[in-house]
Amino acid sequence: MRIEGKEYRTIWFEEKDQVVKIIDQTKLPHKFIIKDLKTAKDVINAIKTMEVRGAPLIGATAAYGIVLAIIENNNHDFIKKSSEDLIKSRPTAINLKWAVDRMIKKLSGVNHNEVLKVALEEAKLICEEDIKFCENIGLNGLKIIEEIYNKKKDTVNILTHCNAGWLATIDWGTATSPIYHAHKKGIKVHVWVDETRPRNQGANLTSYELNEEEIPNTIIADNTGGILMQRGKVDICIVGTDRTIATGDVVNKIGTYLKALAAKDNDVPFYVALPSSTIDWETKDFKDIPIEERNSEELSHAEGLDENNNLKKILIYPKKSKAMNLAFDVTPAKYVTGLITEKGVCEASTEGLKKLFK
Amino acid sequence: MRIEGKEYRTIWFEEKDQVVKIIDQTKLPHKFIIKDLKTAKDVINAIKTMEVRGAPLIGATAAYGIVLAIIENNNHDFIKKSSEDLIKSRPTAINLKWAVDRMIKKLSGVNHNEVLKVALEEAKLICEEDIKFCENIGLNGLKIIEEIYNKKKDTVNILTHCNAGWLATIDWGTATSPIYHAHKKGIKVHVWVDETRPRNQGANLTSYELNEEEIPNTIIADNTGGILMQRGKVDICIVGTDRTIATGDVVNKIGTYLKALAAKDNDVPFYVALPSSTIDWETKDFKDIPIEERNSEELSHAEGLDENNNLKKILIYPKKSKAMNLAFDVTPAKYVTGLITEKGVCEASTEGLKKLFK
Repeated sequence: MRIEGKEYRTIWFEEKDQVVKIIDQTKLPHKFIIKDLKTAKDVINAIKTMEVRGAPLIGATAAYGIVLAIIENNNHDFIKKSSEDLIKSRPTAINLKWAVDRMIKKLSGVNHNEVLKVALEEAKLICEEDIKFCENIGLNGLKIIEEIYNKKKDTVNILTHCNAGWLATIDWGTATSPIYHAHKKGIKVHVWVDETRPRNQGANLTSYELNEEEIPNTIIADNTGGILMQRGKVDICIVGTDRTIATGDVVNKIGTYLKALAAKDNDVPFYVALPSSTIDWETKDFKDIPIEERNSEELSHAEGLDENNNLKKILIYPKKSKAMNLAFDVTPAKYVTGLITEKGVCEASTEGLKKLFK
Repeated sequence: MRIEGKEYRTIWFEEKDQVVKIIDQTKLPHKFIIKDLKTAKDVINAIKTMEVRGAPLIGATAAYGIVLAIIENNNHDFIKKSSEDLIKSRPTAINLKWAVDRMIKKLSGVNHNEVLKVALEEAKLICEEDIKFCENIGLNGLKIIEEIYNKKKDTVNILTHCNAGWLATIDWGTATSPIYHAHKKGIKVHVWVDETRPRNQGANLTSYELNEEEIPNTIIADNTGGILMQRGKVDICIVGTDRTIATGDVVNKIGTYLKALAAKDNDVPFYVALPSSTIDWETKDFKDIPIEERNSEELSHAEGLDENNNLKKILIYPKKSKAMNLAFDVTPAKYVTGLITEKGVCEASTEGLKKLFK
């Protein structure tokens, strides 16, 4: 999608310098910086500090982490150690492990001289597949938006949480893909963008990318979706997910669950958009999912531009206060109207998922 | 209650200089500044800019606004105009109008020379009554916390939203009063403090005042309460309210409704603490309540301390983005376990309220 009118992807391999290029998302929306990753360590750091974030993009970046490990040291033990470290870089996103496992499996038995070539092809394939998946998610979700538009015959108000936009994937995004497809088709849409504390990815990334594609959007505090739904200002919610478990329960950015409860209470359809790579078929009970606890500085400090356009970090909490920073919550399947996947829309349940994927 | 070990109230009249003293709450927690209000205009400005906030404190400040108007110009038309302007200074809090009406009613027919004396006595009486009400709310809420403590025999985890603390009243607070009373009685409590975007009154005021009274508390993003309740980390929610309508529906800081939904979904008791002055007996349908829309700069900009301890304001949103800033939402009575009032705890319903108050 576009930034300042130019088409980008979130990650690509630069053959000439043998480096991976990413958009440093911690600097968005204030600075647009493209960064080089040269080693698996760089990749782990980029994932940990959230220079790349979003489940699909984390997966693709980790796949390129294996490529960079091979370039650094084409030795079985080194690659194995790197893959283990990559998997540990963040605990909740399921397709981090999925991508690394896929790379390792692909490389098993490959001739030593061929390893880099095969790895690079596979990492690129993961990216291409993700783009195709996101495009199909968009086409499947488009039908739902179109149906609302045909009934309402007026702007469709869509609420989204966090960033499940193209910046979270390679292109198109998951939750945003139906929105981009609707906009391209001439359907009038307006997006309520949850700010998404503490890292503000809704404001910083989703609103930013919607602006760049000229889609009308309004940032709201995370607290606001409830009253908007009570007063009929939201026609549909579409969010992404870091992990959907076999029961149809959805792990996503903290706060998603609260919006799903409000949607249920006000009969607003609540959809979750996901590529099948984020389905966790193993976990049966959402209480078993580890919830990442991140540095409380993400809460107590804010970053932005001062009056001289310089990036500044400030303390916004009382000096004596403690804070706790959980990154995800779980939305039980019963609050999810449907899952929008690359293969179609299904019920959020084991049966629903199995119909499409098994 | 205490700030740096010294006992304060949020508002008082300084006889010597004939001025009203307030704590400028827009500067908290970073700076503790006591400010003089000299005219009704000063009072309106203090209410509008939220130097004073919280329904009971707004009411008391408006009452002193009438006193200051009299000092400025003891003329019937001027006082009438001032009272109208005072009522318009914020649209949602019910006891702003309540306090001004009470003052005007008290002054009707009073001898011209007596007006100031009577007004001052009445404003002081409003403050004293509020303190007594808050104290009784605390004693009534204490019983609920005590019951949980006696069953659990371990720290009671209380979630609160925004600031219904002593800084929102004259002393004690509403939602915090049961907590202060429990703490004073030796019951172990820990408070999850919702940050409360966009103005962060939870972090800036509630956590600040709990710190100063040495009550363990942890600030969380507004998004976090849901997963905490899912995982059994919240024993009870207690919030304040700006207006409770005759049906028992509760208007409070935006985001309250989402927490009430999560409490219901996880069988966590959800209580609202209120003095009866905040009951709106006239309104029967919560959809008729005007929801204040405030300046979107409260969302797009953050204020805090930079590395040199200077107060800085920064832009945290993309430059091209729009934002919308609603201040309140409505929690339907069915999600409220009970109302903690100065006269006792009642069901959130017309019958419940009438049993105590009519």
